[in-house]
Order: sequence, then structure tokens, then C-alpha cells
Amino acid sequence: MPRPRTPLLSTERIAEAAMELVDEGEPFGVNAIARRLGVTPSSLYNHVAGRDEIVELMRGRLGEQYLPPAIEGTWDVVVEEMLRAERRMYAEHPFLIPLIVGKTITDPTVIASYDLLATALSGAGFPDDDVLEIVAILDAFSIGFGLDLASPDEIWRPETPTTTLGRLVESSPRGAPRSDRAFEAGLEMLLDGLRLRLARTELD
Amino acid sequence: MPRPRTPLLSTERIAEAAMELVDEGEPFGVNAIARRLGVTPSSLYNHVAGRDEIVELMRGRLGEQYLPPAIEGTWDVVVEEMLRAERRMYAEHPFLIPLIVGKTITDPTVIASYDLLATALSGAGFPDDDVLEIVAILDAFSIGFGLDLASPDEIWRPETPTTTLGRLVESSPRGAPRSDRAFEAGLEMLLDGLRLRLARTELD
Repeated sequence: MPRPRTPLLSTERIAEAAMELVDEGEPFGVNAIARRLGVTPSSLYNHVAGRDEIVELMRGRLGEQYLPPAIEGTWDVVVEEMLRAERRMYAEHPFLIPLIVGKTITDPTVIASYDLLATALSGAGFPDDDVLEIVAILDAFSIGFGLDLASPDEIWRPETPTTTLGRLVESSPRGAPRSDRAFEAGLEMLLDGLRLRLARTELD
Repeated sequence: MPRPRTPLLSTERIAEAAMELVDEGEPFGVNAIARRLGVTPSSLYNHVAGRDEIVELMRGRLGEQYLPPAIEGTWDVVVEEMLRAERRMYAEHPFLIPLIVGKTITDPTVIASYDLLATALSGAGFPDDDVLEIVAILDAFSIGFGLDLASPDEIWRPETPTTTLGRLVESSPRGAPRSDRAFEAGLEMLLDGLRLRLARTELD
């Protein structure tokens, strides 16, 4: 190997190479990352302990890139801005989703983002018992719509007769406009539901 | 290779081997499947054209295993039963999600399942223009909550002080009971939102 002019390895470079592999649908193990960076696997272990730590580094990298560190406004503005940012993040990195969802979150940037959301909901008057339940609903929503945005322009291609689906597919919008419209409708329904829930809490 | 007593290969066996690889987080290319089945890659090509067809076979396999072929009841019963089935399917196969979401759906079992849902919504009075939008919202919901159920018992482990999150994590339920509770709350909010939307449509 030629001697590098700049230090080749850092946790940032390792996370970047791992993200590239994951985005391509490739395995992102220590050996594959080492090959991509042109270093030996053993040199990687000077920077990371293994696969789990690499997943957490990727999560942190995305968090820094996509998640707003602060949001001005009422709780529903915080929810909406966070959902829009997360949807974009997940849409652009769909293969990372099962990896990061499958692991306990420790990365400080992503923890801070959840703390921002939990603090806004708690401050708005949602009871402590409800806040993490609502956070889970918001997570499900942003992940689901991120994946919807990542889906192909043609979602269904029925090859046998259908009662309803085929007819609707012919006349419905496609691609990002389709996904954007569903997201906006879902977001409105979700925010309305949360506002109603908060109003009921205040009446109790 | 020893001569097999029964025919080794079928699209079913290929889909099964591919699912095993995907569930283990392994690459599921033709070579890996051939290795797992103890056959040559070229013999696989007598049954499948390649990666895309294998993804579709896996989708169909899950559809047959999890999705109800018929549901008795009003539109909201259809929505609820389908969401429960899909959530379980996605929770048990999280690594398949980005693969199947990234590809146009042609598998007849899964097409029939979407047709069942679209027919129920259309028959209930949701306008044609709205049905596939609602289907996308339901998909986002079931995928998101499937992944939530697949997440570890401990979702957050803050290692630095937080304003709200750390306190809530200490006192909140964990594991499947936590995810079930959030799913039920989200489901109720979603069905309420759809009922309201249908009532508004009927008033127009």
C-alpha cells in the first residue's frame, strides 16, 4: 500500500465507508470497510470495537446531517419539523433502518434529538406516562413515510385482474408527488389526533 | 455433490433460503443462496431470473404466511385486521423491509391483499382519489410499528444528562408491552382520523 499523505483512519471515515456500503445494500462488516478504505481490518480495531459501534457511528452521522439541533415554536411545530427531517433521513438511507432500529440508541446527537421532542411534548402538557408512547407513534410514522418516499414510482403492477386496485393505480399520482400527498394527509391526521388527545388530557 | 433423493430446487426452496439469509442480515445473492442449498449458481437460474425475482418470491412467501386472504366486516375491521397482520409480518422480518419496499409489487397474493383493502375503503365511500393515499398511510403505519416491535427492550440509553428523556425512560414500560401500547394508541388515533375523514366526505 502506498504511504498515505494524510491519516487514513478516523471514526468519521469508518462511518462514512460503512454508510456507503449499507446504502449500496452491501454487507458493512469490518473486513468490507477495511477493503473499501484500503487498510487492514486490524487497523480498524484501533478506532472501533466492532459492528455494534459502527452502527451507532452511522446513526450519529445521520443525526448530525439531518436532525435539527433546536426548533423554535410550539410543540406541534417541533413535532412537524422533526417528522419532516426524519422522513427525509430515512428516505435517503432505507437500508440503514433495520440496523439502527435493532439497536439501543446511545449516540449523543440522536439522544439529544429525542430529548428535544420529549421535552416539547412534556412541556405542552402531555402526561409523563404518554410522552414516550407518542414518541413511538411519531417514530413509526416517520420511518414508514421515509420508506414510502423511497419506494419506486410504480408501486403496484397487477398482472391479473383486480376488483379495485388496478383501476385506481391507472388514475392515481405516482412518485414523490404521490408520497408527499400521503405524508401531508397523514401528518394532518396525526397532529389533529394529538391535539385532541391533549385537549382531553386538559379536561381531565 | 451427492445425488439428491428428492428434487432439490424449486422457487419455494429458493425463496425460503433467501429469507433465511435476509433474516440473518446476510447478502442473499444467487451465489449465497446456491451455497446454502448446496447447488450450483447456474442451476438456480433454471428457476429464477435473478435478484429482483427472488425479492418478489420472498414478498409472496410472507404474504401467504401472514396476510388474511379475506376479512369479514366493515371497512374499519378490514383496516384493523390487515394492520395487525402486517405489523407482525414486518416485526418478524425487519431486514426484508427495505428490499420489498424498494421494488414494484407484482406478486398475486400481495396484490390481492392490497385489492382487498382498496375494495373495502372504496366500498365504504372513500372517494377514488383518496383510497391509495389512505393505503399509503396504512402501509407507513404498519411498517413503522412492525419495526418498533422489532426494536430492543431498551430503546434509549442516555450516557449524558438529558432534560426529559432520561427521566421518562426510567419510569416507562419496555419491550413488547411498550410497543403494543403505542400501536393500540396509534391505531385508535388512525381509525378515528379515517372515520372523521369519511364523515366529512359524506357531508360534502
